[in-house]
Amino acid sequence: MLTNKQIKLINSLHSKKGRKENDLFLVEGEKSLLELIKSDFVIEFFVFSESQPELANQISLVSKAPIYLEDAENIQKLSTLVNNQIGFAVVQQKKFPSFKIQDRYTIVLDGIRDPGNLGTIIRICDWYGFKQLVLSEDCTEFYNPKVIISTMGSFSRIEFTYVDLPSFFKAHSEYKKIGAVLNGENIHHYQFPEKGFIILGNESNGIREEIMECLDERITIPAFGEAESLNVGISTAVIADNLKRFILS
Amino acid sequence: MLTNKQIKLINSLHSKKGRKENDLFLVEGEKSLLELIKSDFVIEFFVFSESQPELANQISLVSKAPIYLEDAENIQKLSTLVNNQIGFAVVQQKKFPSFKIQDRYTIVLDGIRDPGNLGTIIRICDWYGFKQLVLSEDCTEFYNPKVIISTMGSFSRIEFTYVDLPSFFKAHSEYKKIGAVLNGENIHHYQFPEKGFIILGNESNGIREEIMECLDERITIPAFGEAESLNVGISTAVIADNLKRFILS
Repeated sequence: MLTNKQIKLINSLHSKKGRKENDLFLVEGEKSLLELIKSDFVIEFFVFSESQPELANQISLVSKAPIYLEDAENIQKLSTLVNNQIGFAVVQQKKFPSFKIQDRYTIVLDGIRDPGNLGTIIRICDWYGFKQLVLSEDCTEFYNPKVIISTMGSFSRIEFTYVDLPSFFKAHSEYKKIGAVLNGENIHHYQFPEKGFIILGNESNGIREEIMECLDERITIPAFGEAESLNVGISTAVIADNLKRFILS
Repeated sequence: MLTNKQIKLINSLHSKKGRKENDLFLVEGEKSLLELIKSDFVIEFFVFSESQPELANQISLVSKAPIYLEDAENIQKLSTLVNNQIGFAVVQQKKFPSFKIQDRYTIVLDGIRDPGNLGTIIRICDWYGFKQLVLSEDCTEFYNPKVIISTMGSFSRIEFTYVDLPSFFKAHSEYKKIGAVLNGENIHHYQFPEKGFIILGNESNGIREEIMECLDERITIPAFGEAESLNVGISTAVIADNLKRFILS
């Protein structure tokens, strides 16, 4: 049984303020929980539904974190999901104070606000082997539960940092700043440089003007029909795919 | 002012049953409404918020359909969206009884259930110039309001048909059946044949067994990291991009 203090803590993690104050976050969804226990995240405790003991049993074999059992109704009340029949974990946030760009190419996000989009982009980074993600300070919070669930477990493998993008770009002048825009060079013919940042902008407004001024190059996914734009997650995947194909060719 | 009969009709269009009985559907969201009036869909009537007359004025210049004004509270009540400040249209469903494959390549969906995924795929078809979409009979309904809103207006440009896939494939033996799977040929090196169907499967279970047996070829998006899968909308976009690049090269 959870104590009242624990219940209060869990509820506080539904909000950004509570997550910040406690340096904790929630991991919900079976896929994310199974990836979590393979990672080096520090888990405070698990809460599982009494009616689904299988996952609790499985996890107790590999994790030393305490496990609390609650009835299905309480699980649902404490979860941020519309439908949570399994449970969740309370986990310590990771900080990356010594974040340093490690790879030839890194994805950089400018003003991404939708948690589902950020989660999808994290999953795409993980698919295409980008181990790091750079975000403008106003991007949505990495540890938002809607982000975490959308990553399908990939949150556990991606390092990230929130930065002031213009200063960050100045400090990394050896990397080409390549922006995804609607009137740039066709990525099917684009010669990707040796090292670069791929910059994707806000869902509605794209890359903001002050960041546009930092760009060295502009790329575009070619259109063959009449849709005016692609979702930012879709764009990230198509560009990542073209980049990997180019690098390996 | 809407009549009670109209209000009842609108509410009935929130459900699949009501949409089927009336052969009508709802178009919500400014972007979708602006694409709607450029299309040849038959619009029964518009309902706009009194407090946002600009869009009503703009639309009254190009559409002869009646426009009803309601207060913001009623608009919200009648809408399926969590937040609708603008209004919506009641529109006749289009049927494509003489649906015939027109292009070298067509996207085929097997058991796609999530309306957001279907909407995203329709938008991607429209971006990459696929004018038609083939769906298995258990795919989510094209005219579901969540599908329509996710297409960002692209619903108005895509013809579609729901079919029994095995029979459909038999009737189109001249097209190669190319399935997106997790252990197929790397799409970066794949030689796309002259004519084909690109088949994408259900979000959780992929292409079902009986459809797998119909496949001529199997393709895979190469992974460079540790994520186990990509979202089906993302996969559709990356494959469409590779196909277009191949055809044009």
